[in-house]
Amino acid sequence: MSSNEDVPVRAPERTGVWFVGARGSVATTAVVGALGVAQGLAPATGLVTELEELDPDGLPQLVDLVFGGHDVNPQGVAKKAESLAEGGVVPAALVSAVAADLEKVDAEVRPGYAPGEEDVATAVQRLADDISDFRRRHDLARVVVVDVASTQPPVDHPEELTDLDGPLPVGAVYALAAFRSGASFVSFTPSPCLRLPVVVDAAARHGLPYAGCDGKTGETLLKSALAPMFVMRALDLRSWTSVNLLGGGDGRTLADPEAARSKTVAKRSGLDAMVGRPVPGPMHIDQLEDLGEWKTAWDHVRFDGFLGTRMTLQLTWQGCDSALAAPLVLDLVRLVSAAHAAGRSGALPELGFFFKDPVGGTEHRLTEQFHELVAWRRGLAS
Amino acid sequence: MSSNEDVPVRAPERTGVWFVGARGSVATTAVVGALGVAQGLAPATGLVTELEELDPDGLPQLVDLVFGGHDVNPQGVAKKAESLAEGGVVPAALVSAVAADLEKVDAEVRPGYAPGEEDVATAVQRLADDISDFRRRHDLARVVVVDVASTQPPVDHPEELTDLDGPLPVGAVYALAAFRSGASFVSFTPSPCLRLPVVVDAAARHGLPYAGCDGKTGETLLKSALAPMFVMRALDLRSWTSVNLLGGGDGRTLADPEAARSKTVAKRSGLDAMVGRPVPGPMHIDQLEDLGEWKTAWDHVRFDGFLGTRMTLQLTWQGCDSALAAPLVLDLVRLVSAAHAAGRSGALPELGFFFKDPVGGTEHRLTEQFHELVAWRRGLAS
Amino acid sequence: MSSNEDVPVRAPERTGVWFVGARGSVATTAVVGALGVAQGLAPATGLVTELEELDPDGLPQLVDLVFGGHDVNPQGVAKKAESLAEGGVVPAALVSAVAADLEKVDAEVRPGYAPGEEDVATAVQRLADDISDFRRRHDLARVVVVDVASTQPPVDHPEELTDLDGPLPVGAVYALAAFRSGASFVSFTPSPCLRLPVVVDAAARHGLPYAGCDGKTGETLLKSALAPMFVMRALDLRSWTSVNLLGGGDGRTLADPEAARSKTVAKRSGLDAMVGRPVPGPMHIDQLEDLGEWKTAWDHVRFDGFLGTRMTLQLTWQGCDSALAAPLVLDLVRLVSAAHAAGRSGALPELGFFFKDPVGGTEHRLTEQFHELVAWRRGLAS
Amino acid sequence: MSSNEDVPVRAPERTGVWFVGARGSVATTAVVGALGVAQGLAPATGLVTELEELDPDGLPQLVDLVFGGHDVNPQGVAKKAESLAEGGVVPAALVSAVAADLEKVDAEVRPGYAPGEEDVATAVQRLADDISDFRRRHDLARVVVVDVASTQPPVDHPEELTDLDGPLPVGAVYALAAFRSGASFVSFTPSPCLRLPVVVDAAARHGLPYAGCDGKTGETLLKSALAPMFVMRALDLRSWTSVNLLGGGDGRTLADPEAARSKTVAKRSGLDAMVGRPVPGPMHIDQLEDLGEWKTAWDHVRFDGFLGTRMTLQLTWQGCDSALAAPLVLDLVRLVSAAHAAGRSGALPELGFFFKDPVGGTEHRLTEQFHELVAWRRGLAS
Repeated sequence: MSSNEDVPVRAPERTGVWFVGARGSVATTAVVGALGVAQGLAPATGLVTELEELDPDGLPQLVDLVFGGHDVNPQGVAKKAESLAEGGVVPAALVSAVAADLEKVDAEVRPGYAPGEEDVATAVQRLADDISDFRRRHDLARVVVVDVASTQPPVDHPEELTDLDGPLPVGAVYALAAFRSGASFVSFTPSPCLRLPVVVDAAARHGLPYAGCDGKTGETLLKSALAPMFVMRALDLRSWTSVNLLGGGDGRTLADPEAARSKTVAKRSGLDAMVGRPVPGPMHIDQLEDLGEWKTAWDHVRFDGFLGTRMTLQLTWQGCDSALAAPLVLDLVRLVSAAHAAGRSGALPELGFFFKDPVGGTEHRLTEQFHELVAWRRGLAS
Repeated sequence: MSSNEDVPVRAPERTGVWFVGARGSVATTAVVGALGVAQGLAPATGLVTELEELDPDGLPQLVDLVFGGHDVNPQGVAKKAESLAEGGVVPAALVSAVAADLEKVDAEVRPGYAPGEEDVATAVQRLADDISDFRRRHDLARVVVVDVASTQPPVDHPEELTDLDGPLPVGAVYALAAFRSGASFVSFTPSPCLRLPVVVDAAARHGLPYAGCDGKTGETLLKSALAPMFVMRALDLRSWTSVNLLGGGDGRTLADPEAARSKTVAKRSGLDAMVGRPVPGPMHIDQLEDLGEWKTAWDHVRFDGFLGTRMTLQLTWQGCDSALAAPLVLDLVRLVSAAHAAGRSGALPELGFFFKDPVGGTEHRLTEQFHELVAWRRGLAS
Repeated sequence: MSSNEDVPVRAPERTGVWFVGARGSVATTAVVGALGVAQGLAPATGLVTELEELDPDGLPQLVDLVFGGHDVNPQGVAKKAESLAEGGVVPAALVSAVAADLEKVDAEVRPGYAPGEEDVATAVQRLADDISDFRRRHDLARVVVVDVASTQPPVDHPEELTDLDGPLPVGAVYALAAFRSGASFVSFTPSPCLRLPVVVDAAARHGLPYAGCDGKTGETLLKSALAPMFVMRALDLRSWTSVNLLGGGDGRTLADPEAARSKTVAKRSGLDAMVGRPVPGPMHIDQLEDLGEWKTAWDHVRFDGFLGTRMTLQLTWQGCDSALAAPLVLDLVRLVSAAHAAGRSGALPELGFFFKDPVGGTEHRLTEQFHELVAWRRGLAS
Repeated sequence: MSSNEDVPVRAPERTGVWFVGARGSVATTAVVGALGVAQGLAPATGLVTELEELDPDGLPQLVDLVFGGHDVNPQGVAKKAESLAEGGVVPAALVSAVAADLEKVDAEVRPGYAPGEEDVATAVQRLADDISDFRRRHDLARVVVVDVASTQPPVDHPEELTDLDGPLPVGAVYALAAFRSGASFVSFTPSPCLRLPVVVDAAARHGLPYAGCDGKTGETLLKSALAPMFVMRALDLRSWTSVNLLGGGDGRTLADPEAARSKTVAKRSGLDAMVGRPVPGPMHIDQLEDLGEWKTAWDHVRFDGFLGTRMTLQLTWQGCDSALAAPLVLDLVRLVSAAHAAGRSGALPELGFFFKDPVGGTEHRLTEQFHELVAWRRGLAS
């Protein structure tokens, strides 16, 4: 977790990871995992940036990441890690092994932004100061701010949000704070923030890169692998029904229909884009308290084959969202930090591989996105 | 089905399609479908060669295909089409509409090769003569022989089969007949024939192209779309269980364990190749008489995510094999005929997109295969 | 369809079947099936009253049923039968074989009741006259009116509906007409009608039996077989999620949220009653135009075993609602007619086996309902 | 676990539970669970004998059970409990809470019988002595021996096994030892032992009750709840395909085709008996090491409805065999002990509710079995 500072050779650069929602499931899983993998206590399963094609050695190493963040929740990271272990998301033995490190991370968590309790301009400055202090305190080469907080509802007229005067979506406040502090920004949650003029302009003004939105972790991942199959085989998709049963935290937010709309729109638009026309079919997101950190998705796909023969594919996906999201968060930190170091600014559409709703890009097909990612990574290195 | 011969402009070239198994489900569905689509009675659903990327106008048109073939079964094509209509594989109205054409196709069917009733050398000559007669009779520019007969068991020492003296797999006899008659050859059924020296040498000697083996129509198609997702996301595939319930004809052959072995090996090796190591898990192929022409496949995929979190994907695929296979057969005819016209010879690995067990190639990932196919098609055209 | 009237021995009694919704899918399938089974053209699959335990010989025979009914739809029964054959619900050959009989049935269909176009009192009299005419015209021993029309929304204060002066649910108007004409009544559709004082009183006044509501055909049938398993094994049901994908007609009505509420309430209350407490979990009813007459239901059941071990059962049911409903309709006609002949009046809770929401009873467990049915049938016979 | 011996009132009778396979998953889960429930640390979920219908107060209480047993495995019960906690079968906190009790149980485990290392007559006497010592040492009112060891293959001519002179199935050796020591016997594993004359005669000679065979815990449980639904609704079961994916221990034994045959036969015969004719369809039992203590079963049920309409039901059951088996084992101990106390001897077919292959009975339908069980329990009490 820390560079070996008494060695006479030049210490490697360290990268700060500043989580919005630092005490939530995704951030905690990412921290536990980064520590575990860096210390050789867990395999690198799920880390795309450890694939040879992405040249892991040229990216920030997990051991060189330093964690902190904002959260409105007072319950600490270590406590959250214990509850994740109970829920089977992370191994209990690993949580025990890194318990002391988790306390150190929790000491780097600062109070988050609560809309209505602070005006936007004040909040942006306060949050930016927290991030700047973090960078200085740890002598970090650069910081990536990653929003892993709850789903945020869409805004009706994004193009009108051009300054700090009105109410802004929560994610936008954090993005502005990130840019003001000189940090890059990743929106891993469903949020309209990266499409608001006020945010896009700030990134341009500060010359900083950003990537988003909405991590592609489960059912949408499957769709982006499977829908192209139907297209390449000229099979006629007649309907695609999706049912998502979520437990705990994520489910609770999505029981709010406004927030759910944000997620539903993102999920649906990708499918339609891949197929080239709207594909009918209901999409449900339901909360089942009892599922805890787990998720079950059922998809029912009706398609016509040759001469209109009616066929069906059904999928049942049983996964753990935090465990699917956490390695992608670490991947994005490594890649966005490298982009920042290479002087890139603005949207990074080549990271669309990681998102349901890629900012700056229109490609949703998984393999094509992977090829774009690999090519972009090569470009960075050269 | 026929060119418009009274028009003064030069008639388009016509391509012969010679089926091994001409009175079976796949051939009959292909014929009914080609007639129906050519006559505007059915949509082109499932025909990959009608995708823009494959430049359909530069390929033989469905209306310019002429059908014939070999079969050991005396029951005619029209009768088979009726039973397919009853089973819901093809629309009854379409079968009625093309009934007269089906009788004409059936008139072009010649007795097939029954091992043991004829020595191999005699059979090759007789079958080749049938194909040559067919080409001359219809003034065809070229003929593609497509083996859609039953699954054939693997041979233990394929490298030893270098001449006509021993017993050869049935498919090899037809391939040799095809080449002797100047026709190209597609092995759409699981068969070792395209890897026997005697067959490879004959193709080279006659300068003819061939493609195979074993059409990728159902569960293996799904695997080739999904397994790369796990690899690209660095998820750890722990087991992949496959259960295939087949009805009618295909099922009956596969109840023969030797024949099933041929299919099972082909299915498994692709998965292992995509993942880069053996993936454990049973594979079953069962016959359920009651399923008729339909097929249900259930796949149970266990994978580990970040920090070893255990996750599962289940798939249920309900399709009709003949309806999945038939358009691919027509695609292959168009593409192999174009390759023949362009002077290509030997194995065509760029057609691996269509096969479980691509001859001459090692790529199994669907998207990569599609890109290879499109690039190859462009090369043909230029 | 008709008794053998020139035979000197006493002709068997004939029973009239008067459908509300006579030109819909369920009624048409029932008529085609009754004709087909009676004429030996189809097996008795799905007819509960042909089980030995129910003493089929003592019930009205299918050959002695005479069909007619009301409908607001002008399109005839024969046409509907053809479209059902196209959709794979009934065999095309069977529809052809009984085509002439279907025309005769259609000649017995009278214009249905359209709320708002007629006051209730007038409508009841007109509909009752139609039924009485039908009985006289065919010299029927008795008539059973069966409501197989669309789902009807619940009413907010059923106890206030005590006379004909206000607006009544459509089903209630038909039930009143049935009783006025001396016919018994079966409500096979979701409807509040059999719990309205005005309807209950009319049945009592005329001394006529009735049964309902909402045929138990698919997912609820499964639940009534499976939920008792969890209870008998002391397993702890934590959630039961139900997703119903419906095509065509039934789906269209249920896209109306008010109507869907009626169905959803019926489905849920049975589960809670069997388990003895509310079982959480969403229930969705979605229309997928493309499914036609077919239906797919997915159920996800989470239960705890010993020491809280988390387990899951998933079900996928793919059926055809009309084909599931039609034989039950014929069963109910036979049983209610026999009850009428035996002088029973009022609700028949022992027929709860056939309903999602049994009027007059509280038992939902399938096996217990079957035992009640068999015992009741024995009581009728003695 | 122990009666309160310093209280002046008469202490309740204590019942010994002697496991064959005392250090295996099922026995260990049963012991951990009995301790946990008795001490109020876990709910009684899954214990059928805690249902009101079975009058729990009149049965031996969990707190009055004393555990011991035979095993050939030297690894102790506490260690096994820890590995079950890691696998998610039992809560880790519960295992910690009862750790001291588990050590006491392990001290009561004696070396098991290894065929070939001891002649049968010697073994029976040695094992019987162990059981008798256990009863005396703990002043037990009676002992129930429960065989939860591995699946045992069927024997070809069971009727010939009439004495101790030949090789006997392992389970038979233990059953004979149980009877010789005056204990009743439960065969919870697939085994032919309760149908051998030598065993049946010994039970009769000693006037002792026994019950078996093969606990009905998962897919067969589902079948016994669902197959009657098809029969009661006169639906025509065309095929029933079953695929069982098992992990760890149970799976390893069943990879032995001989042992698997024993299990497969038991599973199939119940379905055929319920339907009244053979129902075709493959049945697979596969080992997937990676599943650990968990099991996934997929069933594909094809049935015809009215007029032959083709419908399908699919089931996926994801459970933990030990957690499903353990409470049933405790139920059987309580019920068989009560039967013993009431002077019953011979087979107890009324306990068929708990078994795939009920000895002495032919009823497989779950609800009917439950009714028989409840009636029998009432008879015991009176």
